Amino acid sequence: MKLADLPTPSLVLDRTILSRNLQVMANTLARLGVPLRPHMKTAKSIDVARMALQDQPGGITVSTLAEAEYFAAHGITDILYAVGITPQKLDQVAKLNAAGADIIVITDDPDTASAIAAHPAPPRALIEVDSGEERGGVLPEDDLLPELARRLGPTLRGIMTHAGHSYSGRSVADMARIAEMERAACARAAGRLREAGYMVSIVSAGSSPTARHAENLAGITEMRAGVYMFGDLFQAEIETHGMDAIAVTVLTSVIGRRPGRVLVDAGGLALSKDRSTESAPHDYGFGLALDLAGTRAYGNAIVRRAYQEHGVIEMDPARPIDLPVGGRLRIAPNHTCMTAAAHDRYYVVDGDHEVIAIWPRINGW
Amino acid sequence: MKLADLPTPSLVLDRTILSRNLQVMANTLARLGVPLRPHMKTAKSIDVARMALQDQPGGITVSTLAEAEYFAAHGITDILYAVGITPQKLDQVAKLNAAGADIIVITDDPDTASAIAAHPAPPRALIEVDSGEERGGVLPEDDLLPELARRLGPTLRGIMTHAGHSYSGRSVADMARIAEMERAACARAAGRLREAGYMVSIVSAGSSPTARHAENLAGITEMRAGVYMFGDLFQAEIETHGMDAIAVTVLTSVIGRRPGRVLVDAGGLALSKDRSTESAPHDYGFGLALDLAGTRAYGNAIVRRAYQEHGVIEMDPARPIDLPVGGRLRIAPNHTCMTAAAHDRYYVVDGDHEVIAIWPRINGW
Repeated sequence: MKLADLPTPSLVLDRTILSRNLQVMANTLARLGVPLRPHMKTAKSIDVARMALQDQPGGITVSTLAEAEYFAAHGITDILYAVGITPQKLDQVAKLNAAGADIIVITDDPDTASAIAAHPAPPRALIEVDSGEERGGVLPEDDLLPELARRLGPTLRGIMTHAGHSYSGRSVADMARIAEMERAACARAAGRLREAGYMVSIVSAGSSPTARHAENLAGITEMRAGVYMFGDLFQAEIETHGMDAIAVTVLTSVIGRRPGRVLVDAGGLALSKDRSTESAPHDYGFGLALDLAGTRAYGNAIVRRAYQEHGVIEMDPARPIDLPVGGRLRIAPNHTCMTAAAHDRYYVVDGDHEVIAIWPRINGW
Repeated sequence: MKLADLPTPSLVLDRTILSRNLQVMANTLARLGVPLRPHMKTAKSIDVARMALQDQPGGITVSTLAEAEYFAAHGITDILYAVGITPQKLDQVAKLNAAGADIIVITDDPDTASAIAAHPAPPRALIEVDSGEERGGVLPEDDLLPELARRLGPTLRGIMTHAGHSYSGRSVADMARIAEMERAACARAAGRLREAGYMVSIVSAGSSPTARHAENLAGITEMRAGVYMFGDLFQAEIETHGMDAIAVTVLTSVIGRRPGRVLVDAGGLALSKDRSTESAPHDYGFGLALDLAGTRAYGNAIVRRAYQEHGVIEMDPARPIDLPVGGRLRIAPNHTCMTAAAHDRYYVVDGDHEVIAIWPRINGW
């Protein structure tokens, strides 16, 4: 089967680029002496997880309990569920753990910490620390930090943070600076807990930009990152990787032509309505048009409008898209995590037109 | 099963509101003497289709061939696939038609028109007309119109248009004006074709706002509309319906609390990254927070940030969200078509907390 035979729209994963991205991250972290707990929220695929875990300890990160269940069923047991747990979800965690998983939950809420400790089958737990993102988590200096540790009692394994504010950085230097904020917050929080007599065996941090550009990870026991595997236009804009590191694209067909633009069958559902690059140096609308080989952009041809199933590409006059209705091209996404989530499978290629595998994804909740 | 027992995030459909929305649209079009070919791209559910088809001729509209296959398998055969067809997709259409469907395709492209006519099992075809949206379609005055008819030959059944530019209207008066543009373009195109000797039995138009607010549909044989079934914040803003007509919401749990805001487990995937209301009179961010009953907003509490699985609700100081971690609320979506697409089922309620049914959806392509 070739790309020309696939239904459109569909999701294409270039394994050659994926392998290179995995290698770059593995080398980066190996140099800093910190293992990786890959975040599977982007890929949601056991096939990708197996590749990402090569030469790593074997633990993963997930964003949904559906992912936890799926990966556990495929033999991965050490799973960090990196979204604040609720008391109501503890039964499901316990059920998965009883079936062989060993899920770690996170919290920044005192009542939830008490509920974790009081559960008849309590999971391992980490305290979520805010290292500057201002989303979830407790500040390292907050009195809540030792209070959470006290309530978690023997379920406490350590702390975790996510430097999501790295997405506001725009250069390698920014990322290195934010990575140091992330590291320092972890070191302060872990230090406080240890001084108070708590065992802190896990100090988990990460985001793709900070994992890629950290200069020092002293005190961190593991880094989490996900989107680095596939890359996207936004990550390229913030210098997490180069434009040649985008492994996932949407295959689409031309369904109409007008002066200056083409209509394609990849719209807001196939691409997502994500507009991450709106605030980036270069705004790519809803995605950048590439040729069928995925290697060359049609100049600055951008998906400017995204309806449910229609995308409108404004062509670059310097490199018009010379395809008839039915002709095929690929769209590089703004934000791969969002784009991939509309698709139930990857059509895998190796830098070629030949589809070498179909890999399923675990979407939903 | 009650809403309090469901996993979160999940998609809730209020059948009472749905029924009322269907009745309002049916009454509106009955008054104008035009039947409805409901667009199933929003609901993607046979259960909803059966309700929407009450007292209608029985044909539907779809946005993907996956929908066509699903609805045909459930016994609905008269299906308009309202996205420009490509020559490559004709085999799949023929296969579905051979299995019992009777799919109508649309085109505005001469080579595709020739390919439709030349196919060994040609489907019925409509010419797509541009009534002002400037997306797909040929202008009624364009010489291409009779040329497309000539090429389609005996497969030609008529014309269709979609007044998607109604989404730029902001009042009932705007919608009535745009509906008249839509009607007039259809009348001109159908008139030209009839003068040239072609049979034009189908003159298909529609969008939810124009179907709801048209004052005259003379010459139109059917209206298509989809989002009116469920409604959303954007449609309420453009006066397609009132705020009490939003039938679909996302059930979510509080996963964290900070001064002035709560963190919930409905993020960019569960809500979509759609920002339709950005350009509306009131900007609802990524959605409006409602209480668990779905009947009362927490003042102007808005999902301001949407990460993959985290939503950040900024509270209205006049009506704080007084829920602990694990507490539940509902989010009214900006754009239901996009929000629903992330979910594989509806949890159906009847204006109550009791889940009376689970209805599956047909997502993907």
